[in-house]
Amino acid sequence: MSLPIKDDEIDIVIGALHSDLTSFMNAWRPIFSRFHLIIVKDPDLKEELKIPEGFNLDIYKKLDIDRVVGTSTSIIFSGYSCRYFGYLVSRKKYIISVDDDCLPAKDNKGFLVDAVAQHITNLTTPATPFFFNTLYDPFTEGADFVRGYPFSLRSGVTCALSCGLWHNLADYDAPTQALKPEERNSRYVDAVLTVPARTLMPISGINIAFNRDVVGPALLPCLRLAGEGKFRWETMEDIWSGMCVKVICDHLGLGVKTGLPYVWRNDRGDAIASLRKEWEGVKMMEEVVPFFQSLRLPQEATTAEDCVVEVANAVKEKLGSKDPMFARTANAMLDWVKLWKSVGGSSSSPGA
Amino acid sequence: MSLPIKDDEIDIVIGALHSDLTSFMNAWRPIFSRFHLIIVKDPDLKEELKIPEGFNLDIYKKLDIDRVVGTSTSIIFSGYSCRYFGYLVSRKKYIISVDDDCLPAKDNKGFLVDAVAQHITNLTTPATPFFFNTLYDPFTEGADFVRGYPFSLRSGVTCALSCGLWHNLADYDAPTQALKPEERNSRYVDAVLTVPARTLMPISGINIAFNRDVVGPALLPCLRLAGEGKFRWETMEDIWSGMCVKVICDHLGLGVKTGLPYVWRNDRGDAIASLRKEWEGVKMMEEVVPFFQSLRLPQEATTAEDCVVEVANAVKEKLGSKDPMFARTANAMLDWVKLWKSVGGSSSSPGA
Repeated sequence: MSLPIKDDEIDIVIGALHSDLTSFMNAWRPIFSRFHLIIVKDPDLKEELKIPEGFNLDIYKKLDIDRVVGTSTSIIFSGYSCRYFGYLVSRKKYIISVDDDCLPAKDNKGFLVDAVAQHITNLTTPATPFFFNTLYDPFTEGADFVRGYPFSLRSGVTCALSCGLWHNLADYDAPTQALKPEERNSRYVDAVLTVPARTLMPISGINIAFNRDVVGPALLPCLRLAGEGKFRWETMEDIWSGMCVKVICDHLGLGVKTGLPYVWRNDRGDAIASLRKEWEGVKMMEEVVPFFQSLRLPQEATTAEDCVVEVANAVKEKLGSKDPMFARTANAMLDWVKLWKSVGGSSSSPGA
Repeated sequence: MSLPIKDDEIDIVIGALHSDLTSFMNAWRPIFSRFHLIIVKDPDLKEELKIPEGFNLDIYKKLDIDRVVGTSTSIIFSGYSCRYFGYLVSRKKYIISVDDDCLPAKDNKGFLVDAVAQHITNLTTPATPFFFNTLYDPFTEGADFVRGYPFSLRSGVTCALSCGLWHNLADYDAPTQALKPEERNSRYVDAVLTVPARTLMPISGINIAFNRDVVGPALLPCLRLAGEGKFRWETMEDIWSGMCVKVICDHLGLGVKTGLPYVWRNDRGDAIASLRKEWEGVKMMEEVVPFFQSLRLPQEATTAEDCVVEVANAVKEKLGSKDPMFARTANAMLDWVKLWKSVGGSSSSPGA
């Protein structure tokens, strides 16, 4: 499949929470091998990484993270947060990131899904956040805007973020997973849609892609639950980051899409054992959703960096007194913006 | 399939724009025959209706409409607007309405879609307009709320309106249809989703269902384009009604769903010949969308009737001077509320 952009405008970022990536990499080989990969090893992981030959990649480990970031910040890059170091050091326009327990999925005709091609299509065709199109993505082949869709809104806006979905093990929280231990997602919903402006959603980090030039600094590893572990259902870092990036996209007039592509999530972990840990995340959302729903950023904030600073200040002011976790998160967000400015750079230079 | 409600809580309303309903009714027989049908004959249609035996139905014609409505109102029940007379005289809680050029569709496994059962499922399970669930309708079998979805929002709200979709001839406007004369919609998107609060959409009247008790009077036949004809792409009455019902649902805390079920739309008409007529509708949306996006109804408006009156007054004030069509529409909306109060009744009495 030929993409509308050059292969060297894309980095695939993998956070390695498992040391043996052999089967993961081999399964993704037909899709990933054309692209440059950034693999960031979870600093908590002791074993050496096992990675098969034949990929164009850079690997970053604890020493590299410490060298670049230093130890004076409030940001912790362990667990699922290690991938954000890859977002930071990339110099490409587009980032695609998939959890290392996911394999390529098949579509409803049984063909392997090229998740990279679908994410790039999502990011390089316009998003339509200001009016809902009932036939979903009007830029999909065979689709269009329906009768009544205002013509002035049909050119759409830049899509900044593409959120893919999951077959087999769905991305439920620990209580839901524990309640329905046998439930697996097999429904193939053949659609991409723009999530409307001012609508919040739980953005999962399992299978995402974004335009690093326009929203890179808004994807941030800043919220950490006390009992956070190495299972997705124990984490909220991506949900927090997702609320930030959605309000920032709304403010900057950028779009967020969700739907295709699917990835296949392998089963692992014991949801019931995680239940106690997850409770903190569930409770957190009750505080956080009204905060983000009422948050309005000042007009002067015109870049993702500006916006993150504004969100961080509002978090400190409105949520800081409710739980020390929020004050820590706000500080980490301010540190992240500093780090992005000094290390992340603001312009992409493909091929660098 | 057993529905969660009684068959006699449902009316199927068909606007007859064609005199020979034989093939239409026979195609729908396995789905419609259990239910009571209301058939409203387009007052412009001269020929006698042809309807096969074996249905439980009431037919309303021009004389019935004149008898009930009189001739002193600004409401015109001709063309696609005739079906609204059926909404008015029904006494059931749920209304399902499908255009008479649509046949039952098949799902992605080749099985006949029971559009009634799907609409009723949509209407009798909660809607979730305040936060977007990335796995679509959490009340579908095999689905749930994803990680990060606030627990306090999981009970949802009453679903007032269910908008189905179309296979084969999609519901495009005349310019799009004329530009892509060969395009047919064959994508089966196996999903239902709640359209988020404060998000506007073009609601098509081709294949819809609603809870008449809570939003009945908000589905209204009040906007009529000067050159309106007997093809969907020439009409905007349903799009206008849809904008009204969506802002009213948002105000009353009710939900609107879109997606399944599909119906199969037969080809007919010449889009290029309609192009000149459609232009008025296209231009209209440019005025109308900003109006509805900024419209806020007063707290005192607590019923659909109240809300329609408020919308009508705002239309008169904000749009009245832009085009005489809007002043006419506002008057028709006020007449409609009066008519609903005197004829439509406000409570359902199943079995009546």
